[in-house]
Amino acid sequence: MDTIKDYVQKNKERFLNELIDLLKIPSVSADSAYSQDVIDTANAVKASLEKAGCDFVEICDTPGYPIVYGEKIIDKNLPTVLVYGHYDVQPPDPLDLWTSPPFEPVIKKTDLHPDGAIFARGACDDKGQMYMHVKALEYMVQTNNLPCNVKFMIEGEEEVGSASLSWFVERNQEKLKNDVILISDTGMISNTQPSITTGLRGLSYVEVEVTGPNRDLHSGLYGGAVANPINVLAKMIASLHDENNHITIPGFYDKVEELSDAERAEMAKAPFSLEAYKKALDLNDIYGEKGYTTNERNSIRPTLDVNGIWGGYTGEGAKTVIASKAYAKISMRLVPNQDWHEITELFTKHFESIAPSGVTVKVKPHHGGQGYVTPIDSIGYQAAAKAYNESFGVQPIPVRSGGSIPIVALFEKELKSKTILMGFGLDSDAIHSPNEHFGVFNYLKGIETIPLFYKYFVELFKVK
Amino acid sequence: MDTIKDYVQKNKERFLNELIDLLKIPSVSADSAYSQDVIDTANAVKASLEKAGCDFVEICDTPGYPIVYGEKIIDKNLPTVLVYGHYDVQPPDPLDLWTSPPFEPVIKKTDLHPDGAIFARGACDDKGQMYMHVKALEYMVQTNNLPCNVKFMIEGEEEVGSASLSWFVERNQEKLKNDVILISDTGMISNTQPSITTGLRGLSYVEVEVTGPNRDLHSGLYGGAVANPINVLAKMIASLHDENNHITIPGFYDKVEELSDAERAEMAKAPFSLEAYKKALDLNDIYGEKGYTTNERNSIRPTLDVNGIWGGYTGEGAKTVIASKAYAKISMRLVPNQDWHEITELFTKHFESIAPSGVTVKVKPHHGGQGYVTPIDSIGYQAAAKAYNESFGVQPIPVRSGGSIPIVALFEKELKSKTILMGFGLDSDAIHSPNEHFGVFNYLKGIETIPLFYKYFVELFKVK
Repeated sequence: MDTIKDYVQKNKERFLNELIDLLKIPSVSADSAYSQDVIDTANAVKASLEKAGCDFVEICDTPGYPIVYGEKIIDKNLPTVLVYGHYDVQPPDPLDLWTSPPFEPVIKKTDLHPDGAIFARGACDDKGQMYMHVKALEYMVQTNNLPCNVKFMIEGEEEVGSASLSWFVERNQEKLKNDVILISDTGMISNTQPSITTGLRGLSYVEVEVTGPNRDLHSGLYGGAVANPINVLAKMIASLHDENNHITIPGFYDKVEELSDAERAEMAKAPFSLEAYKKALDLNDIYGEKGYTTNERNSIRPTLDVNGIWGGYTGEGAKTVIASKAYAKISMRLVPNQDWHEITELFTKHFESIAPSGVTVKVKPHHGGQGYVTPIDSIGYQAAAKAYNESFGVQPIPVRSGGSIPIVALFEKELKSKTILMGFGLDSDAIHSPNEHFGVFNYLKGIETIPLFYKYFVELFKVK
Repeated sequence: MDTIKDYVQKNKERFLNELIDLLKIPSVSADSAYSQDVIDTANAVKASLEKAGCDFVEICDTPGYPIVYGEKIIDKNLPTVLVYGHYDVQPPDPLDLWTSPPFEPVIKKTDLHPDGAIFARGACDDKGQMYMHVKALEYMVQTNNLPCNVKFMIEGEEEVGSASLSWFVERNQEKLKNDVILISDTGMISNTQPSITTGLRGLSYVEVEVTGPNRDLHSGLYGGAVANPINVLAKMIASLHDENNHITIPGFYDKVEELSDAERAEMAKAPFSLEAYKKALDLNDIYGEKGYTTNERNSIRPTLDVNGIWGGYTGEGAKTVIASKAYAKISMRLVPNQDWHEITELFTKHFESIAPSGVTVKVKPHHGGQGYVTPIDSIGYQAAAKAYNESFGVQPIPVRSGGSIPIVALFEKELKSKTILMGFGLDSDAIHSPNEHFGVFNYLKGIETIPLFYKYFVELFKVK
């Protein structure tokens, strides 16, 4: 019988080409111009699950984009793994910064990926990492190594808040019943030091609009005499952080879990070079909340960032105008115990309260999600650790990620099971950025590691 | 012999249709996409000057857009009036706020313009006001009422800083020799209370760029750990005004002329209703520098306004990104004695100095110009006052405008003559905004008033 290593080697080219075909479809969920492509991607995922060996696959309609559900039930008495992933991708802009078109995947070598990496929007987040599970299933089915039942739930709105997925999960608890949820939508420290994400930050994403005069005005005739919505918006945004970069929204930190010195010391053990970090981003210095290290700032601390701002004349040349309106998209990363609905309310109340007279302010909540922490004593975590250890030959390190997968907290609430975050990407893979890529090594290593998780999970489950 | 009133009545329809044809050409000097249209407009202006009776008209090449020069010299011993205007217009965006397309002129009635107003970009600023002078010349030539020599200099880069005009003026002092410069590119208080602009603000226009990380980053993985260029730009912009809305740039106010209480009391006599002002703009309150009235804030005080800002994701939906770069276009209105080169330097030095470590800042000066004041005891001002008084039946009031015509200070320096600003627009004409318009009454009244200026100027010149 083939070992997984042999199987991956034998099918390497096909595995890469199948993923490349999937990456060619621009499934940008944030932009309705791509809606047909998002649907086409769902259908491609359905076909791939059938081909991989699911007994039953369906496209489930939702109020938004469909969810692809697939399953292979081999024995009702065996445990069930629910695989979650998403087939939608982030918008590709700014396009001019891509060295190759975002939806024309190419394999190029990089310093960190000497075997080459697939460059395309969604290569790592999340088509590539999701497709590893499809190919792992194919292997287990083809070689009779599937030790338990498996279910797939692949959604198309992760990049815009997973609204339809919550709707779907709330209505399909029985269908989605499982013993552990497996997700590959995070990263690891490096290709020589695997890690398992045990914490995720929550998210609150809002859009704000500041309105001054009822029309754009000549800045000469009105400049200095009316509130300029852009200047006002800048002042309001600036006031959201104090001189120590603490967030000034009243009540914002009330429920933030403060880690013990011991826990912080444990975290500090993860290999990290500030010099390399700054060099990779061409930064002369870092920046952030006083009293915390870089790794703490982007994992155990909540943050507030403007993700986009616009107003007035942004074209070529000069226009002496005072805009009627100015806008910003603002997101807050939250830590466990911060409730995103509550934070969104606190933000809205505060932001409206600091608007000076002379302007009106609107806050429109976009979406959000709760933070999450995986217990490292769960059999799911232990099975994942054994799997990485066997395929990489190194014990994985548990790490807290700064990112958010809003749906994970909902899974625990609705499906009563723990989520294991087996990520194979690297921070340098530029997800959400131009030139997103995913290492060929990482892709194949993921396919190789996943069946080991199934094996150890079922073993540990039986002795439980 | 026709009086000007009769002549205007008889030719009213044609005067309107000729202007409408000129307004159909989108001569947007700020956007190179329109460059052919700008050239076409110069040729249309040349043709109109020939038709109106100039003996000599030429398109003068410059490093930028051409200048249309025309003249009618009737007697070397008589004084010469130099008419200046511009045939370029502001960009029309935001297009969606126009009630009719900016380059498809239509005449619509408004509360302030019961006889109708021409709605089009450039209707008032400055094609409409410039064309009044062409039609006034036609009248004076057709009816043998031209009492002196006249020269026209109509440029195509006023909305982007008149760089080529300075170049042209410096090289053609002899050709442009004149006894008074006449410009209609300003407004008046109302159709029942004419006014003459005796002061203009200077301008310094810059574009700033803040760069953080070398690529867009995932706000979850990096949020809170690196300087976000948008948040930083907001903080820097916010810091440019203090809590009293004074500008914080060191040295900014050093040369600002402080008006005496007497002068301020004189200014305060101009009819002004704060309630009407707020109502016209749908503002619940005004805003501005502490210690000054609205009319002082937008005329005798320097200001700083952001005219445009952009960075990060501004499309539909949500994108959790930290942008690599953020940008703003910032303009400062200056008062007499403030040198725009010096202010641009002060701004640049200060803005670079307040950049926190973790970002780099670039300041790119766009253009600028000096402020200007017209002495009301000059014969030019007196002739203009008599002309308005006769055509409106009301004595005009001298006012300081908040706007800038950067070239006026240069005219005085290079051509050694005073500029008279005979404006016929209203503040409510929405120049630089969507739905710019120019009253039919104002257009025709301008054509009627201008020949009276010539008449009185020559009379006063002879007795001088």
